[in-house]
Amino acid sequence: MRLSRYFLPTMKDTPREAEIVSHRLMLRAGMMQQSSAGIYSWLPLGFKVLKRIEQIVREEQNAAGWNEVLMPTIQPADLWRESGRYDDYGKEMLRITDRHERDMLYGPTNEEQITDIFRAHVRSYRELPGRLYHIQWKFRDEVRPRFGVMRGREFLMKDAYSFDIDKDAARLAYNRQFVAYLRTFDRLGLKAIPMAADSGPIGGDMSHEFIILAETGESEVFCHKDWLTTDAVPADVDYEGDLQPIVDACLARYAATDEKHDAASCPVGESDLVHTRGIEVGHIFYFGTKYSAPLGAKVAGPDGKETEVHMGSYGVGVSRLVGGIIEASHDENGIVWPEQVAPFHIGLVNLKVGDSACDAATEDLYAKLGTAGVDVLMDDSSDRPGAKLATMDLIGLPWQIVVGPRGLANGVVEVKNRKTGEREEMSPEAALNRFAG
Amino acid sequence: MRLSRYFLPTMKDTPREAEIVSHRLMLRAGMMQQSSAGIYSWLPLGFKVLKRIEQIVREEQNAAGWNEVLMPTIQPADLWRESGRYDDYGKEMLRITDRHERDMLYGPTNEEQITDIFRAHVRSYRELPGRLYHIQWKFRDEVRPRFGVMRGREFLMKDAYSFDIDKDAARLAYNRQFVAYLRTFDRLGLKAIPMAADSGPIGGDMSHEFIILAETGESEVFCHKDWLTTDAVPADVDYEGDLQPIVDACLARYAATDEKHDAASCPVGESDLVHTRGIEVGHIFYFGTKYSAPLGAKVAGPDGKETEVHMGSYGVGVSRLVGGIIEASHDENGIVWPEQVAPFHIGLVNLKVGDSACDAATEDLYAKLGTAGVDVLMDDSSDRPGAKLATMDLIGLPWQIVVGPRGLANGVVEVKNRKTGEREEMSPEAALNRFAG
Repeated sequence: MRLSRYFLPTMKDTPREAEIVSHRLMLRAGMMQQSSAGIYSWLPLGFKVLKRIEQIVREEQNAAGWNEVLMPTIQPADLWRESGRYDDYGKEMLRITDRHERDMLYGPTNEEQITDIFRAHVRSYRELPGRLYHIQWKFRDEVRPRFGVMRGREFLMKDAYSFDIDKDAARLAYNRQFVAYLRTFDRLGLKAIPMAADSGPIGGDMSHEFIILAETGESEVFCHKDWLTTDAVPADVDYEGDLQPIVDACLARYAATDEKHDAASCPVGESDLVHTRGIEVGHIFYFGTKYSAPLGAKVAGPDGKETEVHMGSYGVGVSRLVGGIIEASHDENGIVWPEQVAPFHIGLVNLKVGDSACDAATEDLYAKLGTAGVDVLMDDSSDRPGAKLATMDLIGLPWQIVVGPRGLANGVVEVKNRKTGEREEMSPEAALNRFAG
Repeated sequence: MRLSRYFLPTMKDTPREAEIVSHRLMLRAGMMQQSSAGIYSWLPLGFKVLKRIEQIVREEQNAAGWNEVLMPTIQPADLWRESGRYDDYGKEMLRITDRHERDMLYGPTNEEQITDIFRAHVRSYRELPGRLYHIQWKFRDEVRPRFGVMRGREFLMKDAYSFDIDKDAARLAYNRQFVAYLRTFDRLGLKAIPMAADSGPIGGDMSHEFIILAETGESEVFCHKDWLTTDAVPADVDYEGDLQPIVDACLARYAATDEKHDAASCPVGESDLVHTRGIEVGHIFYFGTKYSAPLGAKVAGPDGKETEVHMGSYGVGVSRLVGGIIEASHDENGIVWPEQVAPFHIGLVNLKVGDSACDAATEDLYAKLGTAGVDVLMDDSSDRPGAKLATMDLIGLPWQIVVGPRGLANGVVEVKNRKTGEREEMSPEAALNRFAG
């Protein structure tokens, strides 16, 4: 992509309303724009990151055996009256009346709706397990939305659901999602730690939060220092196999949020305990028949008797992750994208547009990298060199290739690693081979 | 995908509420389920088709030079008060009050919001042209939603916008979208005909509808018979070049909706005129400064003077297209997907699950086709052979490979083309080479 044809409205100044670093950087890097309190438009750079994250989440859900569906954003209130949550939910639920005076709502979550789909079609235990997910916008009318996409009102979430004949079968689904989450966050370049959690308003008695470590995180967390060095993520998973050992190994390593941590009873000695901060990016629940009972989601068992299905739900905050990744990966100059979610792989900077040697070398690299399938953002603007380099650092692409007249006179361009700051001079051909080889 | 792990709740009976064939077939094929009037959940098969269409639309928008963004579904009413449309829109707009008693709405379209983004960032004619689009759910509170996704309340739309210094420049954007639409619908396997249109409530004085021919379509249309045989779509387009000749060649060939057609003044003789039906799937508008003026979207021109930008908007009904394609492509047995949007390329049917020869041959084909990157739905269920074949016809995958004990005894499987109904017997190896060659 040529910067001259890309809508990237970066800002020099730190926007006043932004209290945390990810919010500041997303606005400064032209990733998004506020539409109203807690509601944002995603501009091209932010949109691309959002889609990369969504795709990784999707691939891991598919790999774990879930079928993707898409439920609508607007739900009928009657369904929530069936479960009893219509009144429970309070003011966070955005309630709507349509032109025929029917009560509707903008879904904050989808347990009722997915149960409605299930009960309409599934009759027999032979059709189990039921494993459905979707990635859809949700709305929670937060009283005080803030921190940008970290606590917005309209937000993108992956929510998966499982339907099983009993708790033992439901645990298999739970374990699959547990492992899928380890893999998902790892692919996103994050260290995510599962921690025992209260199940909150969704209810249930088996529940874990996945928390990524970030010094600027919202919650205090405590974990064994092994978490910082050990890789908990299995490289290759057979989802048909027994996943309990993977789950057990994780849970054996101490980790707890402030609310659950008790210094007196903590099994980890002080020298092995890390006290840091984190951000919740995923939450998994088993909640038995909490929804299947009131909504009448039953199947006939092998003995012909009807039984209420056991359910679980599994959420990942997709739009929140954009902010979460920035909280976990930035420096004083801007964002540092992990390669897997970077909006472009390389920022190619022509320091002196109009200089024929610079133009030719940059265009040549751009064309050849593009042919090789490398996603490149080429700065072909007439900004000052300093501004160009600052923008590239701000938007945080993993690599920069800087083409300038002085270097070219010596036959070299500069290749910079955004994360380490390391720079290396090499011929344009060598740079090409580095990335397109 | 194994059917045993896929959520495909097909129905034998024609649902009563479905008046048109696409609605009936989408319900019978387990593609979607109604949530409330005019609001649907997309089940796995329908979701996959929706995503295929969306991706083709996206690729052609990107090729034409548009940047993808994503605006939220919930918009502030104040923005629509600025343009004057808040009151104009009437009851089709879903109006919402949030917990702080602020007036919001579920966007039926995004002219105001995209203009708000533009005016916040663009100051100079040098930053033009502005070319942004998104693919997002919209809501129109239809008084009587019907025809399934063809006239739903919550629907997915691609809406693109252009910002230019004057009408001549805006025409270049308009022409790009015109050509992108020809290409998009062609890739979707549709014959889409641009017809001069009234610009309706969006306003403006240059506007075309793109209408696909389908006998079951909602509107009467008239066109020169050349439209049925001539390919209007340029194979390779240079969007930087002059597109006017392509547009002019299209518009020279007569086509008009019932409202615009006048038998007395029609330039086409009766023997050359086709009278048929069609479905609107796209609509493009140029509307000058209709929104930039009230919203104050101005840029400084070369002379330093501020001038209001000239805008256009360009819509494609993505979810509507799922129904539209079915209206244009089905037979008495079910859907006939064009290859480009088919949810799977091949339906692989094991007629006798449990027969070791059938199981081995089917699993071997499934594994090898998968390795070759062919998207296959394998029916590994224990349904009766007749039911399996009927389901495959119903869901309309372009090809079927049928593995049965009698054929295998002779060393053959049956390959069926869903569209033509042609069947061919060949060895499993030959079938593999046909599709994975």
